[in-house]
Amino acid sequence: MKTIASRQNALFKRVRAALREHDREIALEGRKQVADALAAGWKPVLTIGRGDSQEDVSFAPELFDQLSDTRSPQDVIALFERPRSSFADLLKRTDSIVVALDGVQDPGNVGTIVRLAAAFDCAGVALLPGCADPFSPKSIRASAGAALAVPIANATADEVLASGWPLFATAADGAPVEVPSRGAILVFGSEGAGVSERLRTSAKVVRIPISRRVESLNVAASAAILLSKSYESR
Amino acid sequence: MKTIASRQNALFKRVRAALREHDREIALEGRKQVADALAAGWKPVLTIGRGDSQEDVSFAPELFDQLSDTRSPQDVIALFERPRSSFADLLKRTDSIVVALDGVQDPGNVGTIVRLAAAFDCAGVALLPGCADPFSPKSIRASAGAALAVPIANATADEVLASGWPLFATAADGAPVEVPSRGAILVFGSEGAGVSERLRTSAKVVRIPISRRVESLNVAASAAILLSKSYESR
Repeated sequence: MKTIASRQNALFKRVRAALREHDREIALEGRKQVADALAAGWKPVLTIGRGDSQEDVSFAPELFDQLSDTRSPQDVIALFERPRSSFADLLKRTDSIVVALDGVQDPGNVGTIVRLAAAFDCAGVALLPGCADPFSPKSIRASAGAALAVPIANATADEVLASGWPLFATAADGAPVEVPSRGAILVFGSEGAGVSERLRTSAKVVRIPISRRVESLNVAASAAILLSKSYESR
Repeated sequence: MKTIASRQNALFKRVRAALREHDREIALEGRKQVADALAAGWKPVLTIGRGDSQEDVSFAPELFDQLSDTRSPQDVIALFERPRSSFADLLKRTDSIVVALDGVQDPGNVGTIVRLAAAFDCAGVALLPGCADPFSPKSIRASAGAALAVPIANATADEVLASGWPLFATAADGAPVEVPSRGAILVFGSEGAGVSERLRTSAKVVRIPISRRVESLNVAASAAILLSKSYESR
């Protein structure tokens, strides 16, 4: 099979766009991530190998390595159509909870919370404005591929409020209330600013008990604790 | 005050060593981290400002920026003596639990777990061989400065076993047992290999219930869930 070696090649540019812009197509890097996606029933548009390979297309090593976002060398990249869910889709499942992220800018935190939402079988993840893209290579890596295992949708604060679902948000001045097992939206905010005022005033504010030795928990740690509790009570 | 501008300056080399090797001295970067350390009662050996500053010493901006490990510009670095605790020190506190990390190589995970250990008032963090250094700039950042708020000690598997304290480890094939509130060691392993065989066979193996949509939880997420439960029952 022909090995592509030119930066001007249309396919090379397409894969690069999937990695940089992840707008119409997204890319998973590495054997493990690609295998997990296939096992979950996802069908790649195309797989690309490094050098002479058994994949659909081979890129010369120098060309392939220009694409990789990680320091550890990968040998396969798979292109997928970017999954599309709407916020209304997430609300169709009433036997679980929806996670909403409000201004969570760090792709590592977004990916970690997506993985937690899949682990604790949430109905989906709603991204309010100001969040990192869950389909960037960094987010996908932090999600360990779970970005394909849980529905993800963009949403506005208006849509979240209009859903009529009870809202729960975490903050240091909240009460140690139990989070429900289903039919609720759990909102997590950025580490600096927290959940935006507008959503907060409509939400039950939950406090996770911590010692005075630290000011706060990382947002992904808060999510782990609350989503796990909600799952256990389901 | 004189502003230091030479890479050959002994103090510049000393700060660089604290950032790179963090062996005898460690360095905290940024106003927030330094203020938190001072509030926690830590006394810096020296503070360094960027350009003309009110700190103990000023480094010319070009020199200062060579030191910074982060992309966002900082304007202060503080040197501290590296905290030293022994594993025996950690065992003196019997009203809480000890966290042991076994081959946790990622500095982000080590720092995040150190922050969780402080948040949930653990007796300390024991680092078995193969862990990232908790006093590297990356770990300190992930700990949000909590590396100075909880005792951290190196330990061997022999020492952990010889302590006589009951061990708990997490794995997918464990049972959903409750973790104790005190007098126990919770061992967390690397994401790939898990807790080493030797410790595992001496431990009660705990499983955190998750859905089949993911293979496992991130090690810091597991720690968040179990340490929070242990704290709540204390």
